Amino acid sequence: MNLSEQILDFGRHARQASRSLAQLNSAQKNDALRAMADEVIASADSILAANEQDLTRARENNLASAMIDRQTLTNERLAKMAEGIRQVAALPDPVGEVLRTWTQPNGIKISKVRVPIGVIGIIYESRPNVTSDAAVLCTKTGNAVILRGGSESIHSNVAIADALQRGGAKAGLPPDSILLVAQTDREAVRLMAEMDRYIDLIIPRGGHALIEAVVSHARMPVIKHAHGVCIIYVDEKADLEMACEIIMNAKTQRPGVCNAAETVLAHRAIAPALFEKLAPRLTSKGVELRADETAFAELRTLGYEKLQSATEEDWSTEYLDFILAVKVVDSPNEAIEHIERYGSHHSDCIVTRNEELAERFLREIDSATVYWNASTRFTDGGEFGFGAEIGISTDKLHARGPMGLEELTTYKYLIRGDGQVRS
Amino acid sequence: MNLSEQILDFGRHARQASRSLAQLNSAQKNDALRAMADEVIASADSILAANEQDLTRARENNLASAMIDRQTLTNERLAKMAEGIRQVAALPDPVGEVLRTWTQPNGIKISKVRVPIGVIGIIYESRPNVTSDAAVLCTKTGNAVILRGGSESIHSNVAIADALQRGGAKAGLPPDSILLVAQTDREAVRLMAEMDRYIDLIIPRGGHALIEAVVSHARMPVIKHAHGVCIIYVDEKADLEMACEIIMNAKTQRPGVCNAAETVLAHRAIAPALFEKLAPRLTSKGVELRADETAFAELRTLGYEKLQSATEEDWSTEYLDFILAVKVVDSPNEAIEHIERYGSHHSDCIVTRNEELAERFLREIDSATVYWNASTRFTDGGEFGFGAEIGISTDKLHARGPMGLEELTTYKYLIRGDGQVRS
Repeated sequence: MNLSEQILDFGRHARQASRSLAQLNSAQKNDALRAMADEVIASADSILAANEQDLTRARENNLASAMIDRQTLTNERLAKMAEGIRQVAALPDPVGEVLRTWTQPNGIKISKVRVPIGVIGIIYESRPNVTSDAAVLCTKTGNAVILRGGSESIHSNVAIADALQRGGAKAGLPPDSILLVAQTDREAVRLMAEMDRYIDLIIPRGGHALIEAVVSHARMPVIKHAHGVCIIYVDEKADLEMACEIIMNAKTQRPGVCNAAETVLAHRAIAPALFEKLAPRLTSKGVELRADETAFAELRTLGYEKLQSATEEDWSTEYLDFILAVKVVDSPNEAIEHIERYGSHHSDCIVTRNEELAERFLREIDSATVYWNASTRFTDGGEFGFGAEIGISTDKLHARGPMGLEELTTYKYLIRGDGQVRS
Repeated sequence: MNLSEQILDFGRHARQASRSLAQLNSAQKNDALRAMADEVIASADSILAANEQDLTRARENNLASAMIDRQTLTNERLAKMAEGIRQVAALPDPVGEVLRTWTQPNGIKISKVRVPIGVIGIIYESRPNVTSDAAVLCTKTGNAVILRGGSESIHSNVAIADALQRGGAKAGLPPDSILLVAQTDREAVRLMAEMDRYIDLIIPRGGHALIEAVVSHARMPVIKHAHGVCIIYVDEKADLEMACEIIMNAKTQRPGVCNAAETVLAHRAIAPALFEKLAPRLTSKGVELRADETAFAELRTLGYEKLQSATEEDWSTEYLDFILAVKVVDSPNEAIEHIERYGSHHSDCIVTRNEELAERFLREIDSATVYWNASTRFTDGGEFGFGAEIGISTDKLHARGPMGLEELTTYKYLIRGDGQVRS
C-alpha cells in the first residue's frame, strides 16, 4: 500500500471504530482507559527502549538539551502518564448529557444531546506524552483518533500507541479506535487534511509550518493550537505591586508556553513608577526588554542593561523566551487599539483598580480569555477546572481557549413525536 | 482596484465594522433593524426595478417558471421581507448572555459569555430574500457580513443590500457592517475563502459546485448548508396509518427542500400492508418510486404505475422531487446500517410503537436530527422555536442542524481576579 492508500485505509477503519465507540457507555470506556494505563506500565521496557532510539538520534542531531529533556521518558514519567490516564477515567463523561429539552406547541419533544464528534485527527510535534494525552481524551469522549506525531519522537509514539491499543483491546475497546500514522513526512499531513470523508475534525499542535500545512489543505474543520502574543496593560489606576507580580508571573514562570506574556503596555502616568519597581525583578530573571522610545528612555535612566529598541515586528512576536516588549501608552484606548491590532487574541490582561474601565476592557477586547487583575498563565484547562485539556484553541469556532472533554463532543437533536406532520 | 484588492478591502472594512458592531447594545441593534425594514419599504420602487432586470434576463435564459417565481419580488413580498426584519428585531439578543460562571479555589472568577463571531461570509445562490435574511441575522448578532449572491439575482441583491445599508446607517449602524460583493464570478468565492485574516466563518448555501469551491479553498471554518438524503424506516411494529401520514408529509409537502424524505425502508413483515395503504396516496401525488427487488415485486403486484428498479445510486440521491426510493429490509439492524451508509446524516426517522427499539435508533443514528414518529420536515429553525434561522447546517461542528441566532455567536472567557498568579 502506498501512503495515500494507507491513510485512506486508516480513515475507513477509524470511521468504523468510531461507530462502535460512540455506543460504549461510560463504564466501558473507563475500563478501557484503566487497561490502557496498566498496559503503559506493563510495556515500560519496550517504550523506554523505543524512546532511547529517539534520544540517540536527537543527540546525533545535536538537539538543545531542553528539547532532549522534553522528549525523554523515564519509568517515573511513564508512571505519571499512567496516572494521568487513570485521572481521565475518573472524570465525568460528557457524552449523553442532555443539554436542553423542550416541547413544541405541536407536541414534538426536542432534546439536544451531547455525542462524540466521530473521528479526530491530531497532528503534533515534539513530546511523546501528547500521544497518550490525545488518545486518552478522544477515547474518553467516544471519538476514534488518528494520530500523526513528529519524527523526533516517532519510535516513542509508536510504542506508546501500541501499548494503548493493546490495553484498550483487552478491555473491549473497538479495534482501530486509536491509530497512529508512522510516516512522518509532510505528505501524510496533506493526505489526512484532505480526507474529510473520514476525519471530522483536525487539531494541529505545533509550529507555524505544521499549522499552515494543515490549514491550506484541510477540507474539514480545523481547531488550531497556534501561538499566543499575550499582552498586559497596566493602567494608571493599577496597584503597582500587583502589576509587578502579574507581569513577573506571566513572563517568567514558564516563558515557553502560549499563555506567557510577550508585551507590557504601561500608562504614561505610572510608567516611571512601574519601571522602577519592575526593573530589578526583571533583571534578576535576566529578562531582555524591547522598548518603545519613551520606555527606552525611562529604562535607560534606570540603568537597565538588557535593553533594546523595539521594532514594529516586536509588537506581534511570540518570543517564548525571557524577552519582553514594553510600550508606554497615553490612554486605555491606545492600549485597547494596540491589543486588537498586534495581539493574537489568546489571553490579554488589564491591571487596574478602576472597575468601570476593567469592565470596558473585558467587553471590548475580543480574545479567547480576557483578564482583570490576574496572570495570563491561567489560560489552561487544568486551571479552569476542566480536569483535562487537549490544548488551547486559538480559533473562534466550536472551541475557543482551553479545550476540555466537552469541546471534544458535538450534539445531535432527538425528536420524539406521536405522528406529527408539518402543515 | 482589481477583484483581489477589492475583496481584501471589503475584508478590512468589515473587520473594522465588526469591532464597533460588537459593542452595540440590543436596543441599538434593534433600532437599526427596524430602520432597515423601513428602508426596504421606502426603496420598494428601486428594488422592484432592479428585480425586473434580473427577471428579464431569467426569461431570456428560458429559466423554469418555478425558478423565475422564486426570484420574483413584489410589493407584497417586500412587505413580508420588512415584516421578517421587524420580527428578528423583536427576538431576544443572545449576545452578552453569561453561559456559565464559576470561581476557582484560588479565587479567580471565570465567566463564559456569548459574543459575536466577528465577520461572516455568506455565499449563496438564487432567492434574493437570502440577502435580507442573512444580513439581518448577522446584524442582530453583532456580526459584520460580506454577502456574495448568485448572478441570477444580482441586481435585486444589490438593491436590497443598498436599502439595508441606508436604513442601518440612519440608525447608527457602523458603515461597512453589511457589504455585498457585486462580482458574481467564481473567483470572488475563492478570494473570500482564502481571506481567513478578515473572515471568521463562511456559510455556503447552494449547489454542490458552489460548496466545493468554498470547501476546497477555505482557510477559515466553513459551515455547509448542503444536501439532505433523509430516510424513514417503517418498523414491523409501526402504526401503518401514522407511517403513511409521515411518509406523505415528508415526501410531498415540499419536495424541493433538504429535510424532505428521499428513501423509505420498510420492514419485511409489514411491507405488503404498508405498500397497499401507501400506494394510492403516492399515486395521487404522482410520486415515482425507485424500488429494490422485493419492493418492486410487491408494488408491481399492486399495479403501481410510476415504478422503476432502484440502482445503487438511488440510495444516496437527493431527488428534491416527487421521487422516492423504497427498500425492504429484514431487520432494524439492516435499516440502521443502510442509513449510516447511504444517508447524509441530516434528518432520519423511525416509525414504530416499540419504544426500546426507537430509543436504540435515536442513540445509534448519527444524524443532526433523529426522529421517532414524526415527519423529517420539522428540521427547521422555525419549527424548533428558534424564531429565525440562517439555514440548516450539514456539518458537525459549531452548529449542527438548524442554525438560529445562538449559532451565529461564539464565546469568550472573562477572568476577574485580585492579583492571582500561577504557582
